[in-house]
Amino acid sequence: MYSLTVSDHAMIAHSLPDDFFGPAAGLHGATLTVEATFEREQLDEHAVVMDIGRASALLDEALSGIRYRNLDDHPDFAGRLSTSEAIAAHLAERIAAGIPDWHSFAALTVTVVENPRARVSCRLTP
Amino acid sequence: MYSLTVSDHAMIAHSLPDDFFGPAAGLHGATLTVEATFEREQLDEHAVVMDIGRASALLDEALSGIRYRNLDDHPDFAGRLSTSEAIAAHLAERIAAGIPDWHSFAALTVTVVENPRARVSCRLTP
Amino acid sequence: MYSLTVSDHAMIAHSLPDDFFGPAAGLHGATLTVEATFEREQLDEHAVVMDIGRASALLDEALSGIRYRNLDDHPDFAGRLSTSEAIAAHLAERIAAGIPDWHSFAALTVTVVENPRARVSCRLTP
Amino acid sequence: MYSLTVSDHAMIAHSLPDDFFGPAAGLHGATLTVEATFEREQLDEHAVVMDIGRASALLDEALSGIRYRNLDDHPDFAGRLSTSEAIAAHLAERIAAGIPDWHSFAALTVTVVENPRARVSCRLTP
Amino acid sequence: MYSLTVSDHAMIAHSLPDDFFGPAAGLHGATLTVEATFEREQLDEHAVVMDIGRASALLDEALSGIRYRNLDDHPDFAGRLSTSEAIAAHLAERIAAGIPDWHSFAALTVTVVENPRARVSCRLTP
Amino acid sequence: MYSLTVSDHAMIAHSLPDDFFGPAAGLHGATLTVEATFEREQLDEHAVVMDIGRASALLDEALSGIRYRNLDDHPDFAGRLSTSEAIAAHLAERIAAGIPDWHSFAALTVTVVENPRARVSCRLTP
Repeated sequence: MYSLTVSDHAMIAHSLPDDFFGPAAGLHGATLTVEATFEREQLDEHAVVMDIGRASALLDEALSGIRYRNLDDHPDFAGRLSTSEAIAAHLAERIAAGIPDWHSFAALTVTVVENPRARVSCRLTP
Repeated sequence: MYSLTVSDHAMIAHSLPDDFFGPAAGLHGATLTVEATFEREQLDEHAVVMDIGRASALLDEALSGIRYRNLDDHPDFAGRLSTSEAIAAHLAERIAAGIPDWHSFAALTVTVVENPRARVSCRLTP
Repeated sequence: MYSLTVSDHAMIAHSLPDDFFGPAAGLHGATLTVEATFEREQLDEHAVVMDIGRASALLDEALSGIRYRNLDDHPDFAGRLSTSEAIAAHLAERIAAGIPDWHSFAALTVTVVENPRARVSCRLTP
Repeated sequence: MYSLTVSDHAMIAHSLPDDFFGPAAGLHGATLTVEATFEREQLDEHAVVMDIGRASALLDEALSGIRYRNLDDHPDFAGRLSTSEAIAAHLAERIAAGIPDWHSFAALTVTVVENPRARVSCRLTP
Repeated sequence: MYSLTVSDHAMIAHSLPDDFFGPAAGLHGATLTVEATFEREQLDEHAVVMDIGRASALLDEALSGIRYRNLDDHPDFAGRLSTSEAIAAHLAERIAAGIPDWHSFAALTVTVVENPRARVSCRLTP
Repeated sequence: MYSLTVSDHAMIAHSLPDDFFGPAAGLHGATLTVEATFEREQLDEHAVVMDIGRASALLDEALSGIRYRNLDDHPDFAGRLSTSEAIAAHLAERIAAGIPDWHSFAALTVTVVENPRARVSCRLTP
């Protein structure tokens, strides 16, 4: 099994309007450092999991939808909480949707580092 | 599949009284940077794997038992070697024991970084 | 010359309402990873620059004023831009003000990491 | 399940003579930061996955074959592309071949960090 | 005093044809992770040391001259060794030359990380 | 001005027998990740601050005196506290003493990272 991981980041604002989140219930923000890991059983004809440039473009394209946005006003998070886990799932779905040969991959994992001491991930399989 | 990882650290002293460990057989110590990764198939009703504060408290509680301790005198390591692997297993068991709905998790992994070039992990499933 | 550096983080929202900042002009946010470096010519009577716990408390106290806040509504940034540089200066001044023997230090530097590829610092001398 | 990860690095030159790789088609080089992760269901009689010194020696031995080399002239990459993925597989096979009790391991993963924003891995099972 | 640091990387090939460098005398390569730190006594009218985008563009422009190149064939290193220190000086000079108001800065430091255990820097003042 | 930084680590045990240090007063230990930064106005005849191998050997030699030791029993710390600052000064003095042309350097800084959130440094000049 092989994997390729690329990383990038996005800065967003949001609130988590539920008492469960304590001080994070109010409007605040985050620098989200995001990794996308693509897994495949075999390498392709160029001896890679995927072209790094293509992988980076897929991640950048997914991040462009949330970069410098207030997720409280983002249609994809309307009526639901934009937790780091929900953001990771949102990004993973966008990236997977952009891969024509997604069925040839074993898995895609998006990891979101929200602060130096906490990160989350969402793993999708075709 | 989703995961949440939180991190913290503890400073301990111990010896590894077996010639197998060479210079580490004598009394020395370590800063253990510890990560706990909680995995779940689905997010909970707040769209998270677990509250980050609760996860951090579980890790801190487990670390409090070894922090600033000489593990050679620690009852939980009496009669056995306190290798990083054994410490990781010890912490994983303590954390799992503190999760009332542990059966609803897919796995718990504790990673112990003992120096910049070596780390170990122990993965438990319910 | 000796130094002690402690680190922590805070999550904030803000906007930078000036076309100069491009997409960052709108409301967004950041995880600010912050380091405070205390410098002294000589160690104190306990052979340290400063107690780590005290240094960490000084940094935490300074960060508590901005943590989970929208800096657009923060009185200390009224009428001025809350750039990372301005935040670093704000934190440095708060920390220095909390050190009774500040005159005995050589310098205090606050470094703010705003994303994995950019950071700023502000250095104060008594 | 337990794991042990050790890390090291090697500096190499190579080209990737295929238009697919754009500017990387010409002769260039890389600092490859390499991690080897050894996994085992149970710890051995010394309460470790493997002696850290032995694991580090296995990784160093594998890296010694490519360190300060131009992989375009390396017999093991004759007639094929020395992508980071191919290097990871090459190292994993060399390391596995050096473990007499390889059948007692669950897996071996070699991760190659080729730059701060991209890494690959190859995972072998006995 | 304020500073802004931005980072990027470049992959290069080169040799260091002097016995002094041991195995690095032959053709090899490196991933150079490069930081540029700009220092100024006061912030500008936008409350920043320099626009991050402009700083990143200056660094990228300097790196574009060596990226994916064999420095043995690079005119700027003809007749001299392309050590990491020499590369840092080369990049610092290129960046400084691209700053119209360079005289208003206190210093510029370029740091080159050549492997996980070694880095060099070159600091210029106007 | 040029600098070269090399890094390594050592694991030690010690106590800090003064109520000032709270729980760290008892016997515990640390993984000390140590950086040595050598500064020089000009590069030498090989276009480097110092040979990396020589710099690494100087750091390793200094660390060998404390590696896997209980500093409570170490003659160099007899009658004084082995704080991270004192260890940094001790290492800096040992390294400087091992450089025949120490007068040709501008400074030497030893940084000791004692945990992920705290580090200290000691800077010497000839």
